[in-house]
Amino acid sequence: MDINEKKVPEVVVRRLPRYYRYLDELDREGKMRISSTALSKKMGVTASQIRQDFNYFGGFGQQGYGYNVKHLLTELKKLLGITKGYKVVIIGAGNLGHAIANYGGLKKRGFKLCGIFDSDKEKIGQKVGGIEISDISGAREFIAENNVDIAILTLPKNETEKVAEMLADSGIKGFWNFSYTELKSIDSVFVENVHLTDSLMTLSFKINQR
Amino acid sequence: MDINEKKVPEVVVRRLPRYYRYLDELDREGKMRISSTALSKKMGVTASQIRQDFNYFGGFGQQGYGYNVKHLLTELKKLLGITKGYKVVIIGAGNLGHAIANYGGLKKRGFKLCGIFDSDKEKIGQKVGGIEISDISGAREFIAENNVDIAILTLPKNETEKVAEMLADSGIKGFWNFSYTELKSIDSVFVENVHLTDSLMTLSFKINQR
Repeated sequence: MDINEKKVPEVVVRRLPRYYRYLDELDREGKMRISSTALSKKMGVTASQIRQDFNYFGGFGQQGYGYNVKHLLTELKKLLGITKGYKVVIIGAGNLGHAIANYGGLKKRGFKLCGIFDSDKEKIGQKVGGIEISDISGAREFIAENNVDIAILTLPKNETEKVAEMLADSGIKGFWNFSYTELKSIDSVFVENVHLTDSLMTLSFKINQR
Repeated sequence: MDINEKKVPEVVVRRLPRYYRYLDELDREGKMRISSTALSKKMGVTASQIRQDFNYFGGFGQQGYGYNVKHLLTELKKLLGITKGYKVVIIGAGNLGHAIANYGGLKKRGFKLCGIFDSDKEKIGQKVGGIEISDISGAREFIAENNVDIAILTLPKNETEKVAEMLADSGIKGFWNFSYTELKSIDSVFVENVHLTDSLMTLSFKINQR
């Protein structure tokens, strides 16, 4: 599978996890093939858009015969790094940190949780999802020594930038930021800011329009 | 403000909360006006796309002079139902339910949390964010009597459909579903399924492509 030289547009990148989820569902249901028309209906994207999306990654399948579900799923997993077993740590052992640590979806998508950090003395030493909470002052060293790929930031807003700066040159490759502050991408670290309430506002828009 | 007869495309609806967040930020910084070019840069969307988006809602401002930040923000708030004070309840008082109950962003965006429900006898009676956890068996009646608009579902996957069915005819208008199961929209209830790991996979795609 060759990735085209052209940069993949952000909007296409954001559709990949959805393709993955749908294909994973089809695979669990035992479906072997899916036509681009059927996939198009499920995704709410035109069949031609799907072909354009997949062309960034070499096409993925034969038109007319549809797509081979297992093959497409495997290719999507490779693209999304699900086969890489990326190591993650959680920074911030509050309610959200606990919820993410206990969420089976991380493991299912190939991510390996290997550390949880907090600054609260009362939390340090307690266990979450089988992992002991460590002092945040040791996070940078832990990340560097264990080649951790992604730090999940579930910190209060006012602590996030400071901690992100502290971790920036630890070798970390990405921040998954839940801290309701817009972290700017740092040179070597990709940032994905999660805005939970965006989807609540989308819902409330629809209710409001009815 | 007149909304065009044309149905607003989903992709436009999904940009509205982002417009709202950026405008809110500009307003906090004391900015009075923003050009469509500057807004375009911030949003990563072309200026012509922004004009097209806003045309669904009557335009919002004069080209050439740019947009009046306060006016645009006010119109977006109205559209998104932020000015409506929608009532919400949380169904499921686990870690995620706690995290959402304690999150200031709900209130900031005008949503009024007025109930939390769980089936766990040990949790019932405890307080979260100043609200007492009630028995889930009373949720349907509570929603009907208090005209609750949105139920936030933070339940285990295998309980979600059952509970959604139980609440479907309570007068509830929307489900904000965190339960990692794809709830289908019911006749009278809008559903917004949250897929947290989509953005983690987007991050991991980018790391993987480097």
